[in-house]
Amino acid sequence: MKARNPHFADEVRRLYDSAPFIGAIGLCLVDLAPGSCETLIRLERRHLQQDGFVHAGVQATMADHSAGTAAASLIGAGELVLTAEFKINFLEAAQGEELRCRARVLKPGSRLIVAESEVFCLGGGARRFTAKAMVTLAVVSKGRGGGGAQAAPSP
Amino acid sequence: MKARNPHFADEVRRLYDSAPFIGAIGLCLVDLAPGSCETLIRLERRHLQQDGFVHAGVQATMADHSAGTAAASLIGAGELVLTAEFKINFLEAAQGEELRCRARVLKPGSRLIVAESEVFCLGGGARRFTAKAMVTLAVVSKGRGGGGAQAAPSP
Amino acid sequence: MKARNPHFADEVRRLYDSAPFIGAIGLCLVDLAPGSCETLIRLERRHLQQDGFVHAGVQATMADHSAGTAAASLIGAGELVLTAEFKINFLEAAQGEELRCRARVLKPGSRLIVAESEVFCLGGGARRFTAKAMVTLAVVSKGRGGGGAQAAPSP
Amino acid sequence: MKARNPHFADEVRRLYDSAPFIGAIGLCLVDLAPGSCETLIRLERRHLQQDGFVHAGVQATMADHSAGTAAASLIGAGELVLTAEFKINFLEAAQGEELRCRARVLKPGSRLIVAESEVFCLGGGARRFTAKAMVTLAVVSKGRGGGGAQAAPSP
Repeated sequence: MKARNPHFADEVRRLYDSAPFIGAIGLCLVDLAPGSCETLIRLERRHLQQDGFVHAGVQATMADHSAGTAAASLIGAGELVLTAEFKINFLEAAQGEELRCRARVLKPGSRLIVAESEVFCLGGGARRFTAKAMVTLAVVSKGRGGGGAQAAPSP
Repeated sequence: MKARNPHFADEVRRLYDSAPFIGAIGLCLVDLAPGSCETLIRLERRHLQQDGFVHAGVQATMADHSAGTAAASLIGAGELVLTAEFKINFLEAAQGEELRCRARVLKPGSRLIVAESEVFCLGGGARRFTAKAMVTLAVVSKGRGGGGAQAAPSP
Repeated sequence: MKARNPHFADEVRRLYDSAPFIGAIGLCLVDLAPGSCETLIRLERRHLQQDGFVHAGVQATMADHSAGTAAASLIGAGELVLTAEFKINFLEAAQGEELRCRARVLKPGSRLIVAESEVFCLGGGARRFTAKAMVTLAVVSKGRGGGGAQAAPSP
Repeated sequence: MKARNPHFADEVRRLYDSAPFIGAIGLCLVDLAPGSCETLIRLERRHLQQDGFVHAGVQATMADHSAGTAAASLIGAGELVLTAEFKINFLEAAQGEELRCRARVLKPGSRLIVAESEVFCLGGGARRFTAKAMVTLAVVSKGRGGGGAQAAPSP
């Protein structure tokens, strides 16, 4: 796929450097190309649910944000992406040392971008396919929703 | 709906006291009945994405875990629930002081429980409907997936 | 909710009178208000799958088209709705004499409308809740995608 | 993937020969292997919605049934599959002569099978990617839900 904004890597960097929740969850970008990316989380105790597995919300956040990254690599300079909706299937309970996610755009629309994300859990020398998501992102212009007095933008 | 386990509140408490990611995200249970619950997150900077809105992953985690809580209130004593899949729509970008989520079971199956969650964002005296999820949970027996040497259970 | 187009019932009628697949499946509109509707299918052998239950595709078509109807009641005069995506949960296998669906808009956005549909199966004097869907519809202007030589519009 | 039932092609044939709605919609199986399949619909006027595009319900039925076919190729001799839920994204409005769908199993669980389906529309010498679905199927034993007096099985 082809990037419309030659500085797309800057917009993508903003999704990692300026998103507090992404810092809190420890999500790192490890690879980026127009329309696709790879991300990583080194698993710690704080990522787990009550039975010792990675919380579904961690994998969902990773799948969503990685899809948003892949989408953000394709938008214009004055635009941003907001998740309109996503669906995620958990294929088996995840336990291990690291999560890896590959996201890619299926449809680079001008108003809606559809992407999919696959999450793998690495541990004990094995790599398990633990989750897959489909994500719909709305492309909105940066002016919308800027000031505190304005209504929040809709996806 | 009717709880099968008279001590269901203990199983539910475990979902909050023993889930590190839930503590990290600040999700609190504020109301519980068989088949439904209400939860709360007091919003801080760490919950935000790059444009100052609540991260989709925070709302997704809240919707998923609240649906899991509503489902866990209906299972038998030797069982636990794992999220098989969920889908969430974001209705508008969330900004405010507090998230509230109401989850309720639509179908209390013996193997699959289907629940839905509605997320509201409170701030500036207003209450906005910001996200809605449908969640499918698998009911599995507690024996499965216990030890580290066992294969991870599938939802 | 409030209709923007005073002649919204005409646009909605078009969804039933000019959609061959809706005639083929026997889907009828029985109630309409701005932002919501009720529809009906009288079940026949042709609606079934291999085990004698209503085919998932019949309930999915009904849930999708009814959500589209509820959305179409809210759009402007020069606009139409296209399904961007939907998700449907089947709560139990459906068998009976009639399907009824109630759809309502959750979020009447100017570019995206989110609606939900609940499907019930009536038979033997009982009414069972058999499926629930969440549907995202894109609002597009009627000019797009009109002629055969044009590219098909994206949701 | 490996079939557990050496006669899996017989069970799959039943999904086409004994499902009236599949005959009505004109869905044909053109390729089958354990865990995957390809299907086809020759498009006619009856498949369309009000604007001349293929109805979302046609593509949804095709995606669901093809995923069910891929799943049915992996189950045991006394089992059947029921769709528990699915989600489908429509990537662009479909117009053409033929729909083709490729489905494949992502996770062949003993109780839940997760599959995905990709739908393409062929026409005017081109092949367009028009829809993608993720489908969760419940594996149930054939005894359940057999007689008319029994309760309908849950997915």
